[in-house]
Amino acid sequence: MRISLATGLLKAVFLFVFALIASLLVTMAAQADQVATATSPGGELSVRIMTGNEGHITYAIDRKGVEVISPSKLGFILADQPKLERNMALTSQAQSRHDETWELPWGERQFVRNDYNELRLGFTEKTGLKRQLTVVFRLYDNGFGFRYEFPDQPQLKTVKIVEELTEFAVAEPATAWWIPAGEWNRYEYLYNKTPLTEVSQAHTPITLKTTSGLHMAFHEAALVDYSAMWLRRVSGQTLKANLSPHGDGPKVTRTAPFNTPWRTVQMADTAGGLVENDLVLNLNEPNALGDVSWVKPYKYVGIWWDMHLNNNTWGSGPKHGANTKKTKDYIDFAAQNGLRGVLVEGWNLGWDGDWFASGNDFDFTKAYPDFDIEELAAYAKKKRVHIVGHHETAGNIAVYEPQLEAALDLYQRLGIDSIKTGYVADAGGVKARDADGNIFYTWHDGQVMARHHLKVVVEAAKRKIAINPHEPIKDTGLRRTYPNWVAREGARGMEYNAWGQPPNPPEHEINLVFTRLLSGPMDYTPGVLSLEGAGQPLQSTVARQLALYVVIYSPIQMAADTIENYGKHMKPFQFIKDVPTDWADTQVLNGEVGDYVTIVRKDKASADWYLGAATDEAGRTLEVTLSFLEPGKVYMAQIYRDADDTDYRTDTRHHHVIEQKTVTAADRLTLKLAPGGGQAIRFVAAKSR
Amino acid sequence: MRISLATGLLKAVFLFVFALIASLLVTMAAQADQVATATSPGGELSVRIMTGNEGHITYAIDRKGVEVISPSKLGFILADQPKLERNMALTSQAQSRHDETWELPWGERQFVRNDYNELRLGFTEKTGLKRQLTVVFRLYDNGFGFRYEFPDQPQLKTVKIVEELTEFAVAEPATAWWIPAGEWNRYEYLYNKTPLTEVSQAHTPITLKTTSGLHMAFHEAALVDYSAMWLRRVSGQTLKANLSPHGDGPKVTRTAPFNTPWRTVQMADTAGGLVENDLVLNLNEPNALGDVSWVKPYKYVGIWWDMHLNNNTWGSGPKHGANTKKTKDYIDFAAQNGLRGVLVEGWNLGWDGDWFASGNDFDFTKAYPDFDIEELAAYAKKKRVHIVGHHETAGNIAVYEPQLEAALDLYQRLGIDSIKTGYVADAGGVKARDADGNIFYTWHDGQVMARHHLKVVVEAAKRKIAINPHEPIKDTGLRRTYPNWVAREGARGMEYNAWGQPPNPPEHEINLVFTRLLSGPMDYTPGVLSLEGAGQPLQSTVARQLALYVVIYSPIQMAADTIENYGKHMKPFQFIKDVPTDWADTQVLNGEVGDYVTIVRKDKASADWYLGAATDEAGRTLEVTLSFLEPGKVYMAQIYRDADDTDYRTDTRHHHVIEQKTVTAADRLTLKLAPGGGQAIRFVAAKSR
Repeated sequence: MRISLATGLLKAVFLFVFALIASLLVTMAAQADQVATATSPGGELSVRIMTGNEGHITYAIDRKGVEVISPSKLGFILADQPKLERNMALTSQAQSRHDETWELPWGERQFVRNDYNELRLGFTEKTGLKRQLTVVFRLYDNGFGFRYEFPDQPQLKTVKIVEELTEFAVAEPATAWWIPAGEWNRYEYLYNKTPLTEVSQAHTPITLKTTSGLHMAFHEAALVDYSAMWLRRVSGQTLKANLSPHGDGPKVTRTAPFNTPWRTVQMADTAGGLVENDLVLNLNEPNALGDVSWVKPYKYVGIWWDMHLNNNTWGSGPKHGANTKKTKDYIDFAAQNGLRGVLVEGWNLGWDGDWFASGNDFDFTKAYPDFDIEELAAYAKKKRVHIVGHHETAGNIAVYEPQLEAALDLYQRLGIDSIKTGYVADAGGVKARDADGNIFYTWHDGQVMARHHLKVVVEAAKRKIAINPHEPIKDTGLRRTYPNWVAREGARGMEYNAWGQPPNPPEHEINLVFTRLLSGPMDYTPGVLSLEGAGQPLQSTVARQLALYVVIYSPIQMAADTIENYGKHMKPFQFIKDVPTDWADTQVLNGEVGDYVTIVRKDKASADWYLGAATDEAGRTLEVTLSFLEPGKVYMAQIYRDADDTDYRTDTRHHHVIEQKTVTAADRLTLKLAPGGGQAIRFVAAKSR
Repeated sequence: MRISLATGLLKAVFLFVFALIASLLVTMAAQADQVATATSPGGELSVRIMTGNEGHITYAIDRKGVEVISPSKLGFILADQPKLERNMALTSQAQSRHDETWELPWGERQFVRNDYNELRLGFTEKTGLKRQLTVVFRLYDNGFGFRYEFPDQPQLKTVKIVEELTEFAVAEPATAWWIPAGEWNRYEYLYNKTPLTEVSQAHTPITLKTTSGLHMAFHEAALVDYSAMWLRRVSGQTLKANLSPHGDGPKVTRTAPFNTPWRTVQMADTAGGLVENDLVLNLNEPNALGDVSWVKPYKYVGIWWDMHLNNNTWGSGPKHGANTKKTKDYIDFAAQNGLRGVLVEGWNLGWDGDWFASGNDFDFTKAYPDFDIEELAAYAKKKRVHIVGHHETAGNIAVYEPQLEAALDLYQRLGIDSIKTGYVADAGGVKARDADGNIFYTWHDGQVMARHHLKVVVEAAKRKIAINPHEPIKDTGLRRTYPNWVAREGARGMEYNAWGQPPNPPEHEINLVFTRLLSGPMDYTPGVLSLEGAGQPLQSTVARQLALYVVIYSPIQMAADTIENYGKHMKPFQFIKDVPTDWADTQVLNGEVGDYVTIVRKDKASADWYLGAATDEAGRTLEVTLSFLEPGKVYMAQIYRDADDTDYRTDTRHHHVIEQKTVTAADRLTLKLAPGGGQAIRFVAAKSR
């Protein structure tokens, strides 16, 4: 016993000394210049802030004790002052704890938890202008965000940002899924899958999977009055902010005080974990519009696919699509099938001639003579259908903005309560007017367009109109603050299946789920059940077209095919009629970036659940448990699946099976997806007894 | 006979038909939209020009019948007009043949052959503004260049270039040697060696070696009143122009008519072939200065290394380096050893305080009180030595330009006929003044600095002063037009061996030979025979320091060590005394990028040849034939070589052997280079009998 006691004591002393030495070693091993640190609520993530010999501010992120972002620089190059980058001293710091749950008026889920620790760091230059810069980190267990705040200070009142120096030094080798930035005034690319070391310059979200299996998505939140952040790889695995250019001045000009957007990194052990991550929404400001019950999720058909098929034209002439007769047919179809909206493109003057190259002729209040907008508005109202407005600007905001209010007033008067806008800006970029009234070209996602899009959304909100821009600026979660910003395009959409070379390959939509869609809803316009483009078939199956309504989230979903085609495919069309566009909850059952994904969502208006699964060019069999269903409840599963012989590469792409099966939460389902295929299921909850 | 005749006839007919079919096939195989083609004088290279469906202009390059540059785009994004990119029609074309030989006043060789075919292409927009753009290709057997010419036209008078869209789609996989662009207002990096697919954004010259062994260097020639071209990889193996930013406006603003710089690609089967390639010089305009006999190649010592060793300071105080006494010592040493120049840094007011961050206090006509510039000028004149002037600007051209003429006048009066300028611009970039007199920050290699550097060179030429800028804009061969632009820095130089972390590794100087030095002379400042930095040894050997005088070409070469150190190493110093800085001819005997190189050069003033060889961290034995020597002539080879035990990693780095050997052109030499070592040889031609 005595020996044992002594041994025990010795052991305790030894452990104490060991712990002491270990903690000393940790302290010594830490950067000598570490000035602050903070940890996420559950301890998963921590940030370290350092200022080096030259007073550069750097940050590093550890996840589960392992460095995932190595020391990375912060700072700015300014147009008319020295860089705000070095010679900085930490002069204040504060930590705070936040945990709240808030409600989305519409979305992938009804309630969102916002649970983070904040670290607020005040830096001041040691000499020279003694400028101040605040950096705020918000640490979540599933990611982090940080932003810069420029305090009110006489020596830095007008801030002309030439470049932001923010870096993200990824610690571990990784595979990246990304589209190039800086080449085109759109985001409409197929995704690259490369080692991170082969990324050149990417738009965000860019998604990484590291060798140890960590998934990370780099993006930004609350892009307001600032230029979009592109990420350029500057060496090895380090990505650096490269702000979208202005074209005729500093990339960003602001008056202090102001904040930059949040720079965000979402993290998860699985690909699906990224999709379930609400960090970007959480870093946006709450609803600024008050009662937004007038913002309606909906489904719509439209005079659109026929243009992409060359059956109709946007411009006037014998094939003009936007004519009164055809629009009435679409209104009738929508009314018959319970779809709220009818989009009509090419309705207004300005599409004739080379609109693509100028946009100078667009008139947003004058319809072509064969489109009787007054009569159609009345007709739609009678049929309880809403015309979806359309403003194609050709990226010419110099022409659009002066007409904006009148154009919105017209729509408001006609009961048109949502608008698809368009910014095809291939001629030289977005065309804007400077302070002197001169035209200049700028980027689709620079400060000019960040301002423009928000202006349109705010003006529309005043008139209870929802906005859905195509060729937009990227989504950064602003729908939280402005819930009438219902969706946008911002990626290679369905129209590429009509005429794109190549059309969207099956992996494209899977890639979208884990990249573009992390930023917010996309008006991808699925549902081309005919599977026919302009002389080329879709790289898809019928069941997959249905699955996309669950896989790709948007509060507004188009049934993109022509109504004539739907007339030939009414059985699978039933799913499009049934599927909601507003959800109480969303779960990702499985998935790998670019390979496959299965998502289930619960209807907000009923007890029903919906499942969508899709795969890349490889057929695969996925086992899913139905534990997401309410335990004990019986559901009728209405299954829309690929047939056994279905393959997106042959005419068998049309083959599909519709069947029913009774299931409960205790069941498992085997989803057999054809090459390029998918599966859609509606789980109809039995009425409670 | 009849049979034979018939067979012959048949054969001829067959061959004719075959040729006809073949030519038809070639025509059909060619891009349907190919609009022009041309070939280099010896047929090695050809260019194909295409305009696609949308009227995009693309070019492709074949070498020996194999495509080496795949179809690559041309064009511009403008600030205030649509892109100049699509909808273009070829409206004129002309070919011409040129072959001339011209003389360099100083250089790597005396005579340069300029042998090319020119293809001049006039494009006009088919609709819209109907703007014109001329593209001129010059095809050499060892590379090509092309430039854009903006003709005088009312609809495009002021050209505001937001971005140049020039691409280089490299056809074959390649390894690239490159430094990053866009990060720092300098070129002072160690070189990356990566697959081309891992290049992010690079300065030029960027050098490639393809899998089939083709060496290519991408650069530009005649960068006048335009922004430097960076190359960003936009996808796969495609590099795209990214012009250095302005910071406060379009990247380039010009008035038509004007030409862009030449975009150049040098090609060779060997690494050495790139070094022997005069394409960049050939694409510059001839000497614009008339008699330039006043531009003197020279060697110099300086009060410089002592500052980097912290033995002296640039600013005033007890350790002020630029004092009258010390300068006289340097003048005495230079006079005794036949060196023409003595550089003195820190001689003028403004170095005290945080000059690095502002440059506001520099006075370019006022010396510190302990530096008696009048007395020293007289003293130097008496000793037949020339003080080398020094203008450090801290990149603040807003302060420098107003003083420029007075500063040059002072130097002219004092007989100071060359100036080292400096542009350390770490605070926020180069500081310039806009048209309204406001300060703005810009890049070291944008249009602002292209203008500034040439302004300094031209003003200096009026006073018969030569210019050698450090932290400069890159060299693009303008020394041909302005021969008083004698050298520049523009890469990581010797000073990094004093305090750099890491110091320059042995491969760095080898990398320089095949990248930076392809652009022109570099004031690398070799010759630190003490091999000692500030508490860290050089990664070099003594013999290598000597070899650098031959390996790294410059018409002005510093003997960078302190005169006290040279006093301790007078035997190897003999080579520095002997080596010329102006050459009749240059040949590369062997070499691989980043590994090793052996260069021989013939003195312009005598029949002597000089050899320099250097290796990376690997020791190696190189066999060279001396066939470059004049046949039949006997030479005394004065050899400065590594000893058998020399290694740059240990104190043995100091070990060297000086020996003599009689050789002729028929001999072979075995050069044994230590790890990190080198070898220098002077071949003294025997006096003709």
